[in-house]
Amino acid sequence: MLVLGVDPGLTRCGVGVVEGTPGRPCRLVAYHVVQTDPGDELPARLLRLDQRLTELVAEHRPDSVAVERVFSQHNVRTVMGTAQASAVAVLAGARAGLPVRTYTPSEVKAAVTGSGQADKAQVTAMVTRLLRLAQPPKPADAADALALAICHVWRGGTHDRLAAATRAARTGDPR
Amino acid sequence: MLVLGVDPGLTRCGVGVVEGTPGRPCRLVAYHVVQTDPGDELPARLLRLDQRLTELVAEHRPDSVAVERVFSQHNVRTVMGTAQASAVAVLAGARAGLPVRTYTPSEVKAAVTGSGQADKAQVTAMVTRLLRLAQPPKPADAADALALAICHVWRGGTHDRLAAATRAARTGDPR
Repeated sequence: MLVLGVDPGLTRCGVGVVEGTPGRPCRLVAYHVVQTDPGDELPARLLRLDQRLTELVAEHRPDSVAVERVFSQHNVRTVMGTAQASAVAVLAGARAGLPVRTYTPSEVKAAVTGSGQADKAQVTAMVTRLLRLAQPPKPADAADALALAICHVWRGGTHDRLAAATRAARTGDPR
Repeated sequence: MLVLGVDPGLTRCGVGVVEGTPGRPCRLVAYHVVQTDPGDELPARLLRLDQRLTELVAEHRPDSVAVERVFSQHNVRTVMGTAQASAVAVLAGARAGLPVRTYTPSEVKAAVTGSGQADKAQVTAMVTRLLRLAQPPKPADAADALALAICHVWRGGTHDRLAAATRAARTGDPR
């Protein structure tokens, strides 16, 4: 199962692609950081993010997309941009016909470190170890996206299959 | 100048299309409310909104798109959905190659009622009068979208021409 994870951000958006099977080690496929210029206007920034994420989905052809769910307890100004970037990421997957799943930061941390309260350094260390990388992903923005993708490989497979079964039962479509 | 205004919302998204010239009365072209099912998952809702807004842009072929800028002083849960819906609306315009401009609620209220503190009833009353409608737009969600479009006709024309001139000067492209 190939998963493309997105850690949404308007200025820096992490993208991590891993391949794996639930309960087994994952393999790193690629990671990227999509940047947009904070000096540009919002429409240009969202369009650039949309184009780049759409390209990456087309390039890697993942089986599904995992996006971090945005919460509002943080800096209010940042959160609006993050929410908008996450909408673009969710759409890039949905428009390609892929199942898209969102995870809270604690779900992702718990999946890769065993604790929902883990800090950024711990997440990066575990991602490095789990993917058997010689050194931590650089830039660090990509580590969270890789953690999301790993989390989805381990937890999301079940969810996707359940959702597909529910959809099939509801619509009578055996796909 | 034909303007498509969007009052973003994940459950109900108002769309209003008006034609006009700065300083002169505007003419109502159409209004719509795009709804998504709160029981559906986020990817399905964003995709439905994206498809419908893209269709409306293709159908009406506006010269530009105006979207309400989202603020976070309101209900925090609602605001995240509104921010995501606004990203979808901005993208629908940008992807069609149209200039997209965002306005704060106070800018819109001031443009149509003369006061940035006007309430919803006042905005609806002024939209009804300015567009010379026999009765207020129904559903009411559309009134804010029409107010946005009127605001952009009156204020935005200048902004678009400035932006185009700046872009042309920067890139050397005379378009």
